[in-house]
Amino acid sequence: MGIALVRCLGLLRPREPSEPRLNRGQRKAQTREQLLDAATRVFAERGFEAASLDEVAAAAGYTKGAVYSNFASKTDLVIALIERVEAEHGPIEAMVFNIGANVPCSILEETARKYFKIWEMACFSAFLNGREVAKRMVARGRGTILFTGATASVRGAADFGAFAGAKHALRALAQSMARELGPRNVHVAHIIVDGAIDTDFIRTTFPERYALKEKDGILNPEHIAENYWYLHQQPRDAWTFELDLRPYMERW
Amino acid sequence: MGIALVRCLGLLRPREPSEPRLNRGQRKAQTREQLLDAATRVFAERGFEAASLDEVAAAAGYTKGAVYSNFASKTDLVIALIERVEAEHGPIEAMVFNIGANVPCSILEETARKYFKIWEMACFSAFLNGREVAKRMVARGRGTILFTGATASVRGAADFGAFAGAKHALRALAQSMARELGPRNVHVAHIIVDGAIDTDFIRTTFPERYALKEKDGILNPEHIAENYWYLHQQPRDAWTFELDLRPYMERW
Amino acid sequence: MGIALVRCLGLLRPREPSEPRLNRGQRKAQTREQLLDAATRVFAERGFEAASLDEVAAAAGYTKGAVYSNFASKTDLVIALIERVEAEHGPIEAMVFNIGANVPCSILEETARKYFKIWEMACFSAFLNGREVAKRMVARGRGTILFTGATASVRGAADFGAFAGAKHALRALAQSMARELGPRNVHVAHIIVDGAIDTDFIRTTFPERYALKEKDGILNPEHIAENYWYLHQQPRDAWTFELDLRPYMERW
Amino acid sequence: MGIALVRCLGLLRPREPSEPRLNRGQRKAQTREQLLDAATRVFAERGFEAASLDEVAAAAGYTKGAVYSNFASKTDLVIALIERVEAEHGPIEAMVFNIGANVPCSILEETARKYFKIWEMACFSAFLNGREVAKRMVARGRGTILFTGATASVRGAADFGAFAGAKHALRALAQSMARELGPRNVHVAHIIVDGAIDTDFIRTTFPERYALKEKDGILNPEHIAENYWYLHQQPRDAWTFELDLRPYMERW
Repeated sequence: MGIALVRCLGLLRPREPSEPRLNRGQRKAQTREQLLDAATRVFAERGFEAASLDEVAAAAGYTKGAVYSNFASKTDLVIALIERVEAEHGPIEAMVFNIGANVPCSILEETARKYFKIWEMACFSAFLNGREVAKRMVARGRGTILFTGATASVRGAADFGAFAGAKHALRALAQSMARELGPRNVHVAHIIVDGAIDTDFIRTTFPERYALKEKDGILNPEHIAENYWYLHQQPRDAWTFELDLRPYMERW
Repeated sequence: MGIALVRCLGLLRPREPSEPRLNRGQRKAQTREQLLDAATRVFAERGFEAASLDEVAAAAGYTKGAVYSNFASKTDLVIALIERVEAEHGPIEAMVFNIGANVPCSILEETARKYFKIWEMACFSAFLNGREVAKRMVARGRGTILFTGATASVRGAADFGAFAGAKHALRALAQSMARELGPRNVHVAHIIVDGAIDTDFIRTTFPERYALKEKDGILNPEHIAENYWYLHQQPRDAWTFELDLRPYMERW
Repeated sequence: MGIALVRCLGLLRPREPSEPRLNRGQRKAQTREQLLDAATRVFAERGFEAASLDEVAAAAGYTKGAVYSNFASKTDLVIALIERVEAEHGPIEAMVFNIGANVPCSILEETARKYFKIWEMACFSAFLNGREVAKRMVARGRGTILFTGATASVRGAADFGAFAGAKHALRALAQSMARELGPRNVHVAHIIVDGAIDTDFIRTTFPERYALKEKDGILNPEHIAENYWYLHQQPRDAWTFELDLRPYMERW
Repeated sequence: MGIALVRCLGLLRPREPSEPRLNRGQRKAQTREQLLDAATRVFAERGFEAASLDEVAAAAGYTKGAVYSNFASKTDLVIALIERVEAEHGPIEAMVFNIGANVPCSILEETARKYFKIWEMACFSAFLNGREVAKRMVARGRGTILFTGATASVRGAADFGAFAGAKHALRALAQSMARELGPRNVHVAHIIVDGAIDTDFIRTTFPERYALKEKDGILNPEHIAENYWYLHQQPRDAWTFELDLRPYMERW
């Protein structure tokens, strides 16, 4: 799920265990809310696709059956979460989709499961969230949807068939949505981030790379965010579909 | 599954019902062969992804349980079919992947199921067959793998988010495989076919378009095939990764 | 010449005719200044490439010989103008190159002269100004150079061989400069403007197009300028090389 | 000038010094022929753009004035040469344009003269020859025009601003011509050759690279030529605009 959504969801406090004596309808509503709370936590921790309905049920203290009597599928759970975000926080003005799945592998060793999962995380969840948010934005006649790309969005390097496939597909989705939704006043854009980002992951995994931070050689997440914000603010007579971001010293 | 494979499979005669008195091992082998025969027919008729194991079982006159006691998944069935193709016809020298799934839809109406199916047909099955065939070709130190693209491989038009996504992902897969497998003497290429093809589908669905055949305005499948053959024959000091094909009068 | 430069040049007041009794060195310096004043005006009015040394001489009230005894070529005149801009206004922090030459023609009718002129205006002058400004920026260790592109930068449409050629070449120049100069702290970017702009030219030539201004359907030059300014302000850990700008309702 | 033309021109024997007693018209025609003979040799040795009319005159044993009294410009000389090729050999069925100008240089050091020359050799001469040949082919309703590209046709690497600019512009020209002339039955294509070619230049300048010839690691010119021939032979319902050629082991 997009970081905007995840961050929104992160804001939600799990409800306090509530007082006794609920009637059947109240109990059902309570169960539903508790499942959504659990899904919020599980999706935020594990990612939408990696999460299973079993885990959501377990996190809520229910059986899987309880999930299914409330939601026909994980997809419906996502829709319900988006509805709840809007119910609690107001209309989503901008959605940022940001899931990575940058896992290289020789084509000869790639498993069907991993090939699928990378696409599901980096592309299918973008479709699902993008579609749901787009429906609401089109109905309101405004909004911004921002998808995060990478070099793999435009280049299929050796050992990156799965990741590049997902990123190419995401870019095609963004382009298609931009062309369809632009005239309906919804701004869809694709940002190609090319370079290491100042994160714990880079700091611990690639310390030499991280050391370039001293010379502004890795991307500051705040600066990435400012670009997303900038795109959201563009007046509609001059919208950007695609921009790239990389440190001045990056080789490309 | 690729047309090369499908055509090979099409050559296979269903075995004659065989004589009585088989021991347990013979019966198991016979069941396995009959399931593969059935899969051959079902995949050729319905396509790999659309086909279900239920259908394969039914076509073979067995229960779904019989399939699962022989094959862990549809994927294993594909691997077994490729093995059988090679066992009966010899090493696959060239694989052609050609599945289309050109189904436009507004992003606002696109279903998760259809978005998934289009990717599964046009991209995931390419990965699965491509990987299996590549393993064999790399082991033998030679071979050609050809993937068919479309304009949607390089452009995400409005209402084509699903199809363009699958085609972009397929192109990324092809590029990644070409870069990894080229140095191992396996030639991977991507052909962008841009224009209507002389098929029953075009003849019956777009008769005005089909009428351009008089002026060579639609692609002759034989001519497409000659280009695939040409790529297969290229000496390895001058390999093509990508070429486009369109009628001289096509607008692009 | 870039609009930044042209605008800077536009600020320069022609010097007052000066007092009598100059010695030889003073007269020579005065002639040189008057020639630069004239070049400023002539280049701003006619564009660098269209302007001839004859016109510069005539505008200054001198013979062409006087120009040549001061400047070896039009190129030297440009260098001298850039030097004077910096001498009078300070170091150039950002250069914007913005010359258009969007003149369609069938390849069968295109003249060698026009093919050359379009390239000279839209590409060669970018090289010349870009190189001169880059030298100064690299010496100072900072600066921004922005080149304006168009759809023709990435697509060679029928009848646009000359313009698309110049625009493609300009984009290649920008990319090459960005890769070389980025690590030296000079930010080079390319902006693809796709759509009609709110200018007198569009208002008078394409009134139906201009009417879209009511619905924000044509680009506001102020908004384009804000994007250039934004690129100039980007922190160097997150530089953009290329972005596109188009009205929300533009077909692309 | 394209290799096809150059090779054709190479076939032409310089005329024998002819017998005495020519009248004025005959003398004029003889001078013209001798100038064309000389231009054939000078262009073939030095390239069209590098050659000067002085050199042509000198090679023919005439003054520059003699050239100008016969041809208004070098352009007219090219047109006359194309006419003579057709007069002596028959209609040009296929033109191959193949001039390289792969001279890297820092943007900070690039001279205006070299920047111009690279464009003139690699792009302007393609326009000039392409236009002249296209006129004849359109009139006859058939023909093939093939332009040779390089990696620099689609990528502006550091230090390649001039060469990449010329190659990008050439590709835009080819694309524009293909779109305009395809419907008139003239096939225009662009071939991206990516890798070292088996030539004296590579053998003497990059011996380590050349040693890869043992393993088919450099392109055989015969194999490149076969691809050009293949494009020329394609039936018009399935024309290729662009293909790439590289050794199987090339990194890209």
